[in-house]
Amino acid sequence: MVSASRLAAASTLITLATAQTFQRLGACPTLGCVFPPDQTDFLAGQYFDIRLEVHAPVNGSEANGGIPDPNFSFTIAKSGAVARPATTFFKVAEPSLEKWNFTWYEDLFAQDAKTPSVVRVTSKAYRRVALYEPGEYVATLNYYNGTKTIANWIVRPLQEQKKAKNVILFIGDGMTTNMITAARLIGHKSINGKYQTTMAMDKFPVLGHQMTHSLDSYITDSANSASALYSGHKSTVNAMGVYADSSEDPFDDPKVETIVELLTRIWGSAIGVVSTAQLADATPIALTGHTRLRSQYGALIDQALSGVKNYTWTPFAGPDVFFGGGAEQFYPGTDSWQGKDYYAEFAKAGYSISLNKTSLALAPNTSKALGVFSVTHLPVWLDRNVYPANLNKTTNDPSGNKAPALDLPGLKEMTLKAIDVLHARGGDSGFFMMSEGASIDKQMHVLDYDRALGDLLELDDTIKATIKHLTELGELDNTLIIVTADHGHGFDVFGSADTKYLSSASGDREKRNAIGNYVNSGLSQYTVTNASVSYNTGVNFPVNWDPRYTLAQGVGAAPDHRENYRVHKSGSRLPATNIDDEASDDYYVNPDDNTDGFIVNGTIATNEAQGVHSLTDVPVFAMGPCAASFAGVYSNIDVFFHMAECLGLARGSAAPGNLDKSNKSIVSASVQLVASGVEPVGRVQRGLVFGMMVFQLCIGWAFWGL
Amino acid sequence: MVSASRLAAASTLITLATAQTFQRLGACPTLGCVFPPDQTDFLAGQYFDIRLEVHAPVNGSEANGGIPDPNFSFTIAKSGAVARPATTFFKVAEPSLEKWNFTWYEDLFAQDAKTPSVVRVTSKAYRRVALYEPGEYVATLNYYNGTKTIANWIVRPLQEQKKAKNVILFIGDGMTTNMITAARLIGHKSINGKYQTTMAMDKFPVLGHQMTHSLDSYITDSANSASALYSGHKSTVNAMGVYADSSEDPFDDPKVETIVELLTRIWGSAIGVVSTAQLADATPIALTGHTRLRSQYGALIDQALSGVKNYTWTPFAGPDVFFGGGAEQFYPGTDSWQGKDYYAEFAKAGYSISLNKTSLALAPNTSKALGVFSVTHLPVWLDRNVYPANLNKTTNDPSGNKAPALDLPGLKEMTLKAIDVLHARGGDSGFFMMSEGASIDKQMHVLDYDRALGDLLELDDTIKATIKHLTELGELDNTLIIVTADHGHGFDVFGSADTKYLSSASGDREKRNAIGNYVNSGLSQYTVTNASVSYNTGVNFPVNWDPRYTLAQGVGAAPDHRENYRVHKSGSRLPATNIDDEASDDYYVNPDDNTDGFIVNGTIATNEAQGVHSLTDVPVFAMGPCAASFAGVYSNIDVFFHMAECLGLARGSAAPGNLDKSNKSIVSASVQLVASGVEPVGRVQRGLVFGMMVFQLCIGWAFWGL
Repeated sequence: MVSASRLAAASTLITLATAQTFQRLGACPTLGCVFPPDQTDFLAGQYFDIRLEVHAPVNGSEANGGIPDPNFSFTIAKSGAVARPATTFFKVAEPSLEKWNFTWYEDLFAQDAKTPSVVRVTSKAYRRVALYEPGEYVATLNYYNGTKTIANWIVRPLQEQKKAKNVILFIGDGMTTNMITAARLIGHKSINGKYQTTMAMDKFPVLGHQMTHSLDSYITDSANSASALYSGHKSTVNAMGVYADSSEDPFDDPKVETIVELLTRIWGSAIGVVSTAQLADATPIALTGHTRLRSQYGALIDQALSGVKNYTWTPFAGPDVFFGGGAEQFYPGTDSWQGKDYYAEFAKAGYSISLNKTSLALAPNTSKALGVFSVTHLPVWLDRNVYPANLNKTTNDPSGNKAPALDLPGLKEMTLKAIDVLHARGGDSGFFMMSEGASIDKQMHVLDYDRALGDLLELDDTIKATIKHLTELGELDNTLIIVTADHGHGFDVFGSADTKYLSSASGDREKRNAIGNYVNSGLSQYTVTNASVSYNTGVNFPVNWDPRYTLAQGVGAAPDHRENYRVHKSGSRLPATNIDDEASDDYYVNPDDNTDGFIVNGTIATNEAQGVHSLTDVPVFAMGPCAASFAGVYSNIDVFFHMAECLGLARGSAAPGNLDKSNKSIVSASVQLVASGVEPVGRVQRGLVFGMMVFQLCIGWAFWGL
Repeated sequence: MVSASRLAAASTLITLATAQTFQRLGACPTLGCVFPPDQTDFLAGQYFDIRLEVHAPVNGSEANGGIPDPNFSFTIAKSGAVARPATTFFKVAEPSLEKWNFTWYEDLFAQDAKTPSVVRVTSKAYRRVALYEPGEYVATLNYYNGTKTIANWIVRPLQEQKKAKNVILFIGDGMTTNMITAARLIGHKSINGKYQTTMAMDKFPVLGHQMTHSLDSYITDSANSASALYSGHKSTVNAMGVYADSSEDPFDDPKVETIVELLTRIWGSAIGVVSTAQLADATPIALTGHTRLRSQYGALIDQALSGVKNYTWTPFAGPDVFFGGGAEQFYPGTDSWQGKDYYAEFAKAGYSISLNKTSLALAPNTSKALGVFSVTHLPVWLDRNVYPANLNKTTNDPSGNKAPALDLPGLKEMTLKAIDVLHARGGDSGFFMMSEGASIDKQMHVLDYDRALGDLLELDDTIKATIKHLTELGELDNTLIIVTADHGHGFDVFGSADTKYLSSASGDREKRNAIGNYVNSGLSQYTVTNASVSYNTGVNFPVNWDPRYTLAQGVGAAPDHRENYRVHKSGSRLPATNIDDEASDDYYVNPDDNTDGFIVNGTIATNEAQGVHSLTDVPVFAMGPCAASFAGVYSNIDVFFHMAECLGLARGSAAPGNLDKSNKSIVSASVQLVASGVEPVGRVQRGLVFGMMVFQLCIGWAFWGL
């Protein structure tokens, strides 16, 4: 035990050390950690876990003797009421004490010198609790004989009434206002500054901006930001459906309930997940996933089908619709969970299985539907529609037979089919669908602006077709439609490039003189009819992807690369390559990319092969019931809260009636509940959970599947 | 005269040649030009000029013999009605024929080879007409014995009722969503991802996006975009209050009436213009200016005081409030119009004159008020508040005595004083004020991100203070407040920079490893209290402008430059310099800038010394009467139309009662009008105008002051 004065000194240092780029543990600036942390908002009745940690740094600027307090205590008080121990407050048994160590680097100098700081930890976790009464709460961790870490929690006002039958959430991954502006410019004709057509999202009546920063970093990744949109809780980069703790197990972190789990539990609505990404990718899988480590692809697919199994949690038996790429997590092999055949697992659970566009169209609307159309992410719109010869170079048949997948649906086909299934299966309970244009982000990462904007236009075309289809089904007025992004990239269009001049000029500086700014940007040549060019891609897409005068565009954050501002006809771009064979990454201009262009040296660390995400707020377009609540500027967690309010997902009590919409037997087993803010797990479940927790300390997450 | 078949062939070539970076004349893709061009929208009763041109290219890809048609004709038809000659339609005399030549380059190759294309022109201009009946019109230019250029015009639905007493239009010049996000990050504290305070603009209930592209280029400048916001008419880069014609005179281009002119004419409201820029700079001066050439600073200040004098036009006798920089157009000298003393001219017109913050505070609220506080643009917020020693290096006293201006108001002080004067002077007629944070743009141009964001925070602080002040005056509910930008820059924050590591690392690649992305971005250090740092700048500004961990930020479009991501303490940044003494500009990294940083080579032409504007849509925040009309996505011209609708500025007839709110005698002289869509100038005025026009052909704009 350390003395109080030493603690105070350590505390000052901690503030300095941890509120920087390198952090001991996100959302834990002091030596006592409460997750959910200070300033957390909750939906009334939303399930969550609580994780407490007490840190004892062994060395480094925070060193306090290295003996973590095993006797910490934890209380909760509703505003104005007496603080009660969490066991009393939630009517749960006291969890057993856990212990572990972890290391971190205080800064880049420490990282270079390989001098990690070691931290010893004592910890407890309270599993699956909920707060039902709106208002303010104070959660207090008492440790080191008088030190307190206080978390102020807010349960938002209660909205139990369902105002929208259906919610469709379109996510353009990485999509910013700059990109929408550029997509409009290349896809829509204008005359003397007046657009003759505009984007479908341009026509939405309500616009908002959401802030995408994460809990402990102002730049987010797609897991963390998706999780905020789906659960109302910001987390740490790479985490979804949990707050990241410091333990080694990526599946023991404190969970929060997602909109899909709430909707299944409370209304029994149909759930749809559609993405052009690998289905285990962050944006689709964060609807059902709970892990600190987004790269646990196989396990996350199992969670999507079977729900959380290592702790009592909201039962979940798979989405009604699950369409996308990522076959490597489905056919048996090294990338599927425990090597199992997940096509077979989904089929056993009653899913129709579609592996191409033809079978997708034929799948019955009344069954749950799995559609997996390629290994890894789906080929992008530009390759599917304009340069289809590139498809033949792939080995991405979803059977895993290394043949190219050629009978491919796009986001539009998947989304319209999803609506048919969800409409049939949801019935009066309605549905929730997330539909993602994933490669806007993925192609921006590799600076392939054309492919990114092509997929943005595909997303917009999908939105347009969705509105039409909902109208035909008589469901448009019942459906809240939201279009947003999870984060941005610093993409910008700043002029035009005369590619003929650029290509013919010699020298990097001379080539740059091909760039026209202001009046010399001229007008978009992508919409000029050219009799020699026809892609048959219909309206609202470029008429010509390869005009002489192209967009001069780029990003502020990139690896070394070379620009010639022309479309990459033979496939997606690879801007930088690791020229060494060394294990350490060190990226330079790809010698084979844009060979007639000029070099732009990078602005990010040389071990980054791609562009990176942006700080920027991203737009939110809304129409339908509750659309008005999406106006103005707000946090990404408010997208969840506004959807949850519109769907009436809050619950003011743990009455069994609130829990019986899911058809999983586990629910009735665990619902032996009491009133007033309490939602313990059933007795048998709890025993299992605690057994698991002890077990995990020794053997890690490999046994999670038990 | 050329044959019809030859014309057809030429026409094809024209389409290809002119719809590109280099254009013969914006908004004129064929050889016959109508300004206002096809697709123009009008406010009912808004004055405008019509310019017709017939082009005869002498050489180049469009060459048609080089003899322009002197016998062209022009008709107008309201939808469904018979086309009538413009003279009949508007009841005006036939203008005399004008002739001139001009040259242009078809592309960069032609420019390098110095082989211009010569065009001969015949032209006529109809001055100060208006369309009063809402609906669709077809304007047809007939030339070359059967060729037609058709302009479809729309007069928007009539809204004569005034719904807002006051309108305040805040413009953050060049301000994007990315910049607002960054300013929020450095100026507002957050705890675990939840902001404890937010920007004033974040709290506005309505959000929209406006598209900023210009008539003939997708990247605009500030003149053109300001003009669209103020008049509802997009134009060409560098133009304001006019469509750009091909004649040499920059003051004979066809004009459009601005919101300030309309409001003065129709309601007699008080007018305020406030900017941190030189008052003759595009954004403030486009409220009253009519020229193709924004660099006519002196003449534009004269126009602001006295209105348009070379043609009959809406009388204008100066704004009630005119606060900003740009003293060089006021004290007598080479930069003032005709060398005159405009302090004296404004004083003669009844203005109080303030040249510093102290006298500004003391100026009477009941008089018209001129405040000029520095030569050129005002020093930025960062220098005024954090690094004031930099002010002593200036020679910008508004007297022109080469001393530094030290008693400086900021945007907030100017704006609050402006409200007091406008409130007193506007009375029941209310007021319109444009208040501009100009150096957001100017500092982004030189990649001085800190100074740009400082001025963005100053703008936001001004908005906050304005709302408070309007509340105190009992005017908040009467006032439509809009916050927007005129265009963007491709600014982005993509991570953090450990400036200590960056500075100590050797080599450009090694330095880049100081950049942290995603989780290694960490949290903002600009809001961390540091006992050793205090600027006394109050809340909602950074606590520390020089933390070890700064924002890693930048733009996609820049000249060669060097980055170390630290604040520039000794004054605004100069990223690139012309290392040659040659007349031809050729910019390289400034050897004195960020000497411990790493080089980022440019992406724009090497004769550009600064970053450039962006394509991106920019945000519009609105509150107060009519705010709802600013939701969604629209063109920048719609900002004008929404304001005009809210102010009831449309007029369905030319009744004299619509013209008597201005106190200029010229109005009564010229109002000898007839009904039905017609608004001719008075007889005496017209004679003068025509005389002027002939005169101008010989001697150009130098005699404009007559």
